[in-house]
Amino acid sequence: MEMSFASIAALLAAARSLVITGHIHPDGDCLGSVLALYHGLVAAGKKVQMLIDDDIPAMYRFMPGVELIGKPADAKLVCDALVVLDASDAERIGKVGAVVAAPVINIDHHTSNVKFADYWLIDSQAAATGELILRLLREMRTEITEDIAICLYTAIATDCGFFKYANTSPSTLRDAAQLMECGAQPHLIAEQLDTRPLATLTALGKVLQTLEFHAGGQIATISVTREVGEYAQNTEGFINYPRTVEGVEVAIMFKEAEDKNVRVSLRSKNIDVSSIALTFGGGGHMRAAGCTVTGSLKDAQVKVVAAVTEALDRTPL
Amino acid sequence: MEMSFASIAALLAAARSLVITGHIHPDGDCLGSVLALYHGLVAAGKKVQMLIDDDIPAMYRFMPGVELIGKPADAKLVCDALVVLDASDAERIGKVGAVVAAPVINIDHHTSNVKFADYWLIDSQAAATGELILRLLREMRTEITEDIAICLYTAIATDCGFFKYANTSPSTLRDAAQLMECGAQPHLIAEQLDTRPLATLTALGKVLQTLEFHAGGQIATISVTREVGEYAQNTEGFINYPRTVEGVEVAIMFKEAEDKNVRVSLRSKNIDVSSIALTFGGGGHMRAAGCTVTGSLKDAQVKVVAAVTEALDRTPL
Repeated sequence: MEMSFASIAALLAAARSLVITGHIHPDGDCLGSVLALYHGLVAAGKKVQMLIDDDIPAMYRFMPGVELIGKPADAKLVCDALVVLDASDAERIGKVGAVVAAPVINIDHHTSNVKFADYWLIDSQAAATGELILRLLREMRTEITEDIAICLYTAIATDCGFFKYANTSPSTLRDAAQLMECGAQPHLIAEQLDTRPLATLTALGKVLQTLEFHAGGQIATISVTREVGEYAQNTEGFINYPRTVEGVEVAIMFKEAEDKNVRVSLRSKNIDVSSIALTFGGGGHMRAAGCTVTGSLKDAQVKVVAAVTEALDRTPL
Repeated sequence: MEMSFASIAALLAAARSLVITGHIHPDGDCLGSVLALYHGLVAAGKKVQMLIDDDIPAMYRFMPGVELIGKPADAKLVCDALVVLDASDAERIGKVGAVVAAPVINIDHHTSNVKFADYWLIDSQAAATGELILRLLREMRTEITEDIAICLYTAIATDCGFFKYANTSPSTLRDAAQLMECGAQPHLIAEQLDTRPLATLTALGKVLQTLEFHAGGQIATISVTREVGEYAQNTEGFINYPRTVEGVEVAIMFKEAEDKNVRVSLRSKNIDVSSIALTFGGGGHMRAAGCTVTGSLKDAQVKVVAAVTEALDRTPL
C-alpha cells in the first residue's frame, strides 16, 4: 500500500519493536539512512535492531552507531515491523527478509523500485533516501541530534556526489544547510569519505599508465589487470579519470576478473551507453552502464571499443 | 572607509561608468564575482568594463560574458569607480591600478586584506567573494538572471571545494540553493570545472609513481620534475592525492622550478604547516602553506621532511 510521510510515521509510532535494514553492498545513503532512523526511533523509546547482510566498508565506519549494525543470524526474529531503506526489491536485503517475520515498510528513492513491501513510500525525485528520512523525522517531530545530522549528511552527500550530480535539487542543498545547523561538519565528513588506502592510490597511478584513446579522442579507456585490481582493494572511482579528459565523450574501464571474464564499466556525457551494455548482456542507466565480456583484456577492449565507436558514428553530437 | 552593503550599493548607483577587476592568477571566485557584478551593473544601465591583468584559464571560459574581460592597455582610463573584487592588496590587481584613475571600492573575503582601497567591504566569514556579491545584488534589488546564477555558483563552489572545505556554512548552501532556482545547474558547472587536458592526467599518473612515505606513514610526498611539470600544464590538485591516504597527517609536493629552486606545497590535517613554511621563507595558512627551497629535488625533500618530522614529534596528535 502506498503511504504518506504521516501514515508511515503513524505506523512507526504504533510499533514497539522494529528491525531496520538496507541493501547488500551498503553505501553511504543506505547506512546513513538506517542509522538516522535508528537514532530517531530509539529516542522515541522503541526497541530497535539494525541488520545488514553484508560487511560495512571501512570508509563509512565513522558514522555514529555503525558498530551496532549486526548481520542476520539463522534464528527467526519476530517484531512489529521490518523497515527496509534504500532497497528497490526484496533480493537486495539478502537473507534479512527470510529471517525477520513482520510487515515490511519500504522507503526508497530508486526509479527501479518494484513495490515489493506491504507499505511503501517511494520518491524518485529525491537525490537520496536520506532526504526522505529527514522529511519523515520532521513529520515525527524527532529532534535532529548531531548524530542524526552526521548520518543524514553522509547519506545525502554521497548519493549526489557532494552536490555535483544532476539529482541535486535546491531542497537537497537546503536539507544539507539544516543538517549543518544540527551539527554535521561537511569538511570532516568529506575527509573521512575521501580517505583511501595507499594501495588504492598506487594502483591508480599504475592504471593511469594504461590510458588509451580511440575514435579521435572521443573514447578513453583504462585497464585493470587482475593483479592490480586485487592490490587496489577499491577501483570504484577510477573511471572518473578518463571521463574528465578534454574531448572525451565515453570513458570505459576494463577490469580482469576470474574465469577469463572482463568487467566493463561505461560512462558517457551524452550518448546512451546502457543500450551498448545491453548488446553484451549487461545494463544500467543511459550515462552509466556495465557488462561482462568473456575473453582477454585485449579481446574485450577490441569488441567494446568497436561497439562504442559505431554508436558514436550513429549519434550526431 | 569601511562600508555596508547598502552604502556600497549607493556608491554603485551614483556611478555612471565603472571598471571591475580581480586578482592576477584569476580563479573561479575572482572571475565569477567580476562577471556577476558586471551583468548586474549592465542591467542597471551602467557603462562597465572588466579588466584583468592576466590570462583566463581555459577551465573558466564557460562562464557567460567571460569573453568580454579585457587586459589593461597602457592608456589611462577615467571612470567613476574602480571595483576590485577578491583581491586583498593593490599589488594583486597587477597594472590595472596604475591604468584606471578612479576611487577604489574593494569587496573581499580574505583575512589577509590590507584595506588598501578608498571604500571597502571585507567579510572573512564568507566562504567566497561570490557570497558577498550575491548579498550586494540582493541589496541592489538586481534580478538574479541565469547568467548571474551560473557565475556566482561557480564563484562559491570553487572557493569552498564544492562544499567540502571548512569555510562552508549553512548560508553557503542556502545561497547555492537560491542560485539553482535562478538557473545554475551544478552538474554542468562541475563537469566544466572537472575537465582537464590529457597531459595533466598522464602527468598525474607519473607523479603518483613518486609517492614516498616518512615518519611511519604520517608524511607522504610526491615530486614533480621540471619536465613533468611543464608537460602537465596544471599540477594544482595533485597534492590532494597524498593528502587523502590513510594515516597521512602531512602531504608535501616538491616541484622543480627554474634556477635550481624547488617549490614546496604543504597540506596538513591538524598540525600548523605555515610555521614550517615560514622557517624556509614561505608562508600561508595553518593547514595549507608553501615555500621555495634552493637546491635539487632531493635536497629540498631531505630538508623539508626533516622539519616536518620534527614538528610532528613536537605535536601530540
